Amino acid sequence: METKTRPYDELLTLLREASLLGGTASILSWDQETMMPSAAVGYRAQQMAQLSGLIHRMATDPRIGELLDRCEADDDMTSDPDAAAILRETRHHYERATKLPAELVTERAEVRARAQHEWQEARQDDDFERFRPWLERNLELARRVADHYGWEAEPWDALADGYERGMTAASVEAVFTPLRDRLRELLATLMDGPRRPDERFAAHELPVDAQRAFVRRVAERIGFDFSRGRLDESTHPFCGGSHRDDVRMTTRFRPDGFLDSLAATMHEAGHGIYEQGIPSELMLTPIGGAASLGIHESQSRMWENQVGRSEGFWRWCWPLVEEHFGSAVDGFTWEAAHHAANVVRPSLIRVEADEATYNMHIMIRFELERALMNGSLAAADVPDAWNERYREYLDVEVPDDTRGCLQDIHWAFGGFGYFPTYTLGNLYCAQLFEAACEQVPGLVEGFARGEFGPLKQWLNDNVHAHGGRHEPKDLCERVTGKPLSADPLLRHLEGKLRPLYGV
Amino acid sequence: METKTRPYDELLTLLREASLLGGTASILSWDQETMMPSAAVGYRAQQMAQLSGLIHRMATDPRIGELLDRCEADDDMTSDPDAAAILRETRHHYERATKLPAELVTERAEVRARAQHEWQEARQDDDFERFRPWLERNLELARRVADHYGWEAEPWDALADGYERGMTAASVEAVFTPLRDRLRELLATLMDGPRRPDERFAAHELPVDAQRAFVRRVAERIGFDFSRGRLDESTHPFCGGSHRDDVRMTTRFRPDGFLDSLAATMHEAGHGIYEQGIPSELMLTPIGGAASLGIHESQSRMWENQVGRSEGFWRWCWPLVEEHFGSAVDGFTWEAAHHAANVVRPSLIRVEADEATYNMHIMIRFELERALMNGSLAAADVPDAWNERYREYLDVEVPDDTRGCLQDIHWAFGGFGYFPTYTLGNLYCAQLFEAACEQVPGLVEGFARGEFGPLKQWLNDNVHAHGGRHEPKDLCERVTGKPLSADPLLRHLEGKLRPLYGV
Repeated sequence: METKTRPYDELLTLLREASLLGGTASILSWDQETMMPSAAVGYRAQQMAQLSGLIHRMATDPRIGELLDRCEADDDMTSDPDAAAILRETRHHYERATKLPAELVTERAEVRARAQHEWQEARQDDDFERFRPWLERNLELARRVADHYGWEAEPWDALADGYERGMTAASVEAVFTPLRDRLRELLATLMDGPRRPDERFAAHELPVDAQRAFVRRVAERIGFDFSRGRLDESTHPFCGGSHRDDVRMTTRFRPDGFLDSLAATMHEAGHGIYEQGIPSELMLTPIGGAASLGIHESQSRMWENQVGRSEGFWRWCWPLVEEHFGSAVDGFTWEAAHHAANVVRPSLIRVEADEATYNMHIMIRFELERALMNGSLAAADVPDAWNERYREYLDVEVPDDTRGCLQDIHWAFGGFGYFPTYTLGNLYCAQLFEAACEQVPGLVEGFARGEFGPLKQWLNDNVHAHGGRHEPKDLCERVTGKPLSADPLLRHLEGKLRPLYGV
Repeated sequence: METKTRPYDELLTLLREASLLGGTASILSWDQETMMPSAAVGYRAQQMAQLSGLIHRMATDPRIGELLDRCEADDDMTSDPDAAAILRETRHHYERATKLPAELVTERAEVRARAQHEWQEARQDDDFERFRPWLERNLELARRVADHYGWEAEPWDALADGYERGMTAASVEAVFTPLRDRLRELLATLMDGPRRPDERFAAHELPVDAQRAFVRRVAERIGFDFSRGRLDESTHPFCGGSHRDDVRMTTRFRPDGFLDSLAATMHEAGHGIYEQGIPSELMLTPIGGAASLGIHESQSRMWENQVGRSEGFWRWCWPLVEEHFGSAVDGFTWEAAHHAANVVRPSLIRVEADEATYNMHIMIRFELERALMNGSLAAADVPDAWNERYREYLDVEVPDDTRGCLQDIHWAFGGFGYFPTYTLGNLYCAQLFEAACEQVPGLVEGFARGEFGPLKQWLNDNVHAHGGRHEPKDLCERVTGKPLSADPLLRHLEGKLRPLYGV
């Protein structure tokens, strides 16, 4: 017996080392965004490069391959669910980390770095032609990388699998097409409706110090454990840290950006509550984290949207708003805040989009990058294709490429296959939330009384407790009993927005 | 030519890697004291242990030994001053890191961990007998370690050399004995004097927020560059960070501890200004840091004592105090603050001691640990020897071992040889400061006008710019033209304290 488990134990020890050092790198990344003095940036880049190199060396140690082979041939291992999941994940990551020739990895790193620089300049000068050759080089490299990883239906799948296990363009299309068509209908209906929500509270100026205290209190109330995490400030909010007991999230503040700050805090707290809910016995194993990027995003979106933009939430927190801001919120009510948090307006910029139109931005990007990868769309034709779809799906005119196809960094760093995880997150979110509501009576009603514990507990038990044991689509089916569908998200949006727009 | 420099370049590359990772570990240590959520402590210990292991492996790579041998045999290397200094330091650290058998390192780590735990309990319960066997084991291990390192006159020297290059018990005694005798005289004279400085301001309560803004402003004014460093808060103030462009210092605040907080800030800023002044071309080499612990301490003490307790400083900053604290300092003047910052009172606790009596605490520890290492004092006799010396040197009665020989952690972690660096710091400080005053006309007079730039520039040019090129005693002679002596410190103390005490 002991002889049998020895290779597995050795494997876990090697993986643990790489994971531990990954946590160190993650703390340094957080530090860089929140604490590091500005002049230290060059030196920090060297520190991060060194850590990446050490982690890569640990993760590609040929000994891992040998041990994997032996463990996979051992029925005692593969019949144990946790061991099987650990071997599955290890195989996945080890193959991806070792399949690319070193020259390709180096070339890609160099091209990406240059492409990001050119993209920044191109974006600033509204000069797509400057970026075009670099987009082409990134695409050519991405196709070569996909060939090394291997793919069945189309090369995009090989890249997407690195962001969301098991995601293929076909599976995305199957959910996105009905979502797109029905969202377009809903948006047209809303925009033609007789009413508009009251927007005044959205840009109402409030003191930043009071905002800071308020959002922290909300994060604590919805279940973020500050003895195992922090909330700081950074230009772009994020959630990092090194493990369940050290979760570092950030938000940002502007006097006229209270709702943005609150939404960002609840979003990141959702990520953080997920991390804090991963069982400690899974720590430092390959299943000691989230099931996927999409599932992670489902948790952040749930607290941001299903909770933070709900009527109940605003009924509960309005007295708290009055307590923190005093006379600065005179003339407003919880209804005004609830309205302002739910304004829908088709627009040009993805990161500023509302809950309903956001997914349209993602779908446009998915359709274009899929066509680019397949060669059915030329890089030179991206601006026209982009602008046409914005006209068609969102009824907005794109005035320049800076506010059009040059707005996102993703294609500049070669991240083809990443965008859909955002919308998958919204879809998983809505489907999981419906399941929670069915399984926990009075869940939504409790929000108005500030009772968020039942939702957090349900997520702890049904999502967080599994760590990375299940692939995302399996987790979804397991918890909700159904494959992923666009219906729950559409029901959520329609149920909330139709009354606000009087349709 | 190229062939000749290749081993040296390879050596520098290996050393650079270890140094870079050392900076990462240093940022994590800072994070642990200032930012880390409390629950993360266990996981962080694993991260730190991993980094220590990786750094140790890098620093003891046998390839370093091979390259060292080749470089040391190369006249082109040893005739270049920087290369020679780098080889000297590398040899020193490599030998110390590789001379101890692995079993001894492991045993020492285990005994130290246990000894520190027992010391904590013993200190809490005022139970020296509980700590005694662990002190004995630490001493026995320290003697074995010293034997492995090798020593000439006495084993203490081998350990001390790890803290302060070239320091021997005999050389310390030669400076400490006259210092001790004349300090005892001075203290007796002061205590018998007709006057006492006005102490009222020392414990005067002031709002912590205003203290925070004030000490930051002072740190900036004396020359700490906040674009290359930070000031945060921790239980015990320290100065860390990873290199000249990322210096992290801390202080602490108590409403009734303004002078303590200011002194701690100026002390740590002194360390920080030193680090920020190391030339960038020396970064990541073995001479890219301070010359020694003692020289480091000379820099912190200079800003804390020679500047921060001077009449000129208080004349300059009093209007600033009034600006920050308003009516909270009504009834006080700069003279009151200057008096309160210079009270001398023999006491029991080293870390709370004033500028004059502090060195007596160090000398007592030095005398005892030297005797312990040589075997002329038994561990069981430490309390009596301790109490007798406190009576003799400071004229205070030690009521219990908790406030006596159990107060410091150093002997519990086996740090024999460390204590004297504190007093060496004060001695180097006074001697360097005298040299600065001789070489820069009007230096002290400028303090009253808030002109601290000339002192900082002098330190930059004469101390910081050399990094670790010179051993501490060589640096001292080079800059001041004389070997280290007790005279400048005694002149400094007498010149300031006699008028305050009217003697």
